[in-house]
Amino acid sequence: MRISELSRRSGVPVATIKYYLREGLLPKGEATSSTQAVYGETHLRRLRLVRALVEVADAPLAKVRAALEAIDDPDTDVHTLLGSAQHTFHPDVPEPGTDDPGVRDAEERTDALLAELGWRLIPHSPFKSELTRAIAAMGRLGRPVTDEMLRTYAAAARTVAEQDVRALDPAGSREDMVEYAVVVSAVMERALTALRLLAQEDASARLFDRGRCPEKRPPGTRE
Amino acid sequence: MRISELSRRSGVPVATIKYYLREGLLPKGEATSSTQAVYGETHLRRLRLVRALVEVADAPLAKVRAALEAIDDPDTDVHTLLGSAQHTFHPDVPEPGTDDPGVRDAEERTDALLAELGWRLIPHSPFKSELTRAIAAMGRLGRPVTDEMLRTYAAAARTVAEQDVRALDPAGSREDMVEYAVVVSAVMERALTALRLLAQEDASARLFDRGRCPEKRPPGTRE
Repeated sequence: MRISELSRRSGVPVATIKYYLREGLLPKGEATSSTQAVYGETHLRRLRLVRALVEVADAPLAKVRAALEAIDDPDTDVHTLLGSAQHTFHPDVPEPGTDDPGVRDAEERTDALLAELGWRLIPHSPFKSELTRAIAAMGRLGRPVTDEMLRTYAAAARTVAEQDVRALDPAGSREDMVEYAVVVSAVMERALTALRLLAQEDASARLFDRGRCPEKRPPGTRE
Repeated sequence: MRISELSRRSGVPVATIKYYLREGLLPKGEATSSTQAVYGETHLRRLRLVRALVEVADAPLAKVRAALEAIDDPDTDVHTLLGSAQHTFHPDVPEPGTDDPGVRDAEERTDALLAELGWRLIPHSPFKSELTRAIAAMGRLGRPVTDEMLRTYAAAARTVAEQDVRALDPAGSREDMVEYAVVVSAVMERALTALRLLAQEDASARLFDRGRCPEKRPPGTRE
């Protein structure tokens, strides 16, 4: 297909495709003249992935290149690929320092929670540090997180993550799987945040606004 | 107490307290001389709330003032207070335009989901628009969200939100409740995001890395 059709089928403007070609994020097409080239399905797949990494995950070009190299390296298995894709759209934050006793405590609680859950994780995940940071922040703000709260959050996160992974097509190409992982992680994170705030509004309405329709208050909204 | 003790007990630096006093976010203390004043428990509560709104929720000063006015107005009930507190830390984004058929479809799906859930919500919640926007983005990226996925996310969000509201102390002051709502919404959102990414890593490890410990793969990770 010509670049115009590649643009139509991918939804990516021609000027953006040319930019990706110049940056080496998309391999050149097969030249049919000095000014024209044709592209195939592999270009379309790669283009969709690059767009997901650049536009949805807002990843810097160096990280996009590293993700593409991993895909093109047949020695990299799919699980490792998916993991490195997740890390492309998270800023490199240093692990929290341990001179603060609040952070040390939070780190111990994170480790204890993850050990209890038995999750199989890489040793120095940035998301583990992020969890530690949130637990430490709650303590610093005088609102220490209870174990019950952490367990409830972890169970909800697991339900959602299993749904995410279940929707992955194991027969798809490597690009397709990585693109799916990036898109669903980034975009559905916004959906989950919005749904939580909506559900908080509903839970608060049922707790405080009992006069209006008391029969609708389900058990468990108060202790 | 003197301003130094107010600083120590709240964890807010003296210079920041003076800034809040100048901006009228914290009422003046009782003057004991021309340069000194004493502060009470009401100042401490108000200070913790202002810090949560400014530092944790990153709310602009105009929204902080509006939240404080609502707290001081005895006609504003707690449910309304909590709702307006949530809105302080979300940017005012316009409702998505409906000239795009993808957005119209997403809007219908959002409405259908929330009707099915029976949640009690204000009519034009910004979080509803945010959910619509995420559903539309998935469609535009060629990864339409299934009803199953939306229901799973909503159920997880509800579990977490009920935990959030359960931890609220209904005997607390209005400031305490609003401060709690802001802190838990903002900080635990980061915890939930981190836990979801960790849980995705675990789910992917169980799906793709079966050779290592096949007995650990629970049912339901593949279809």
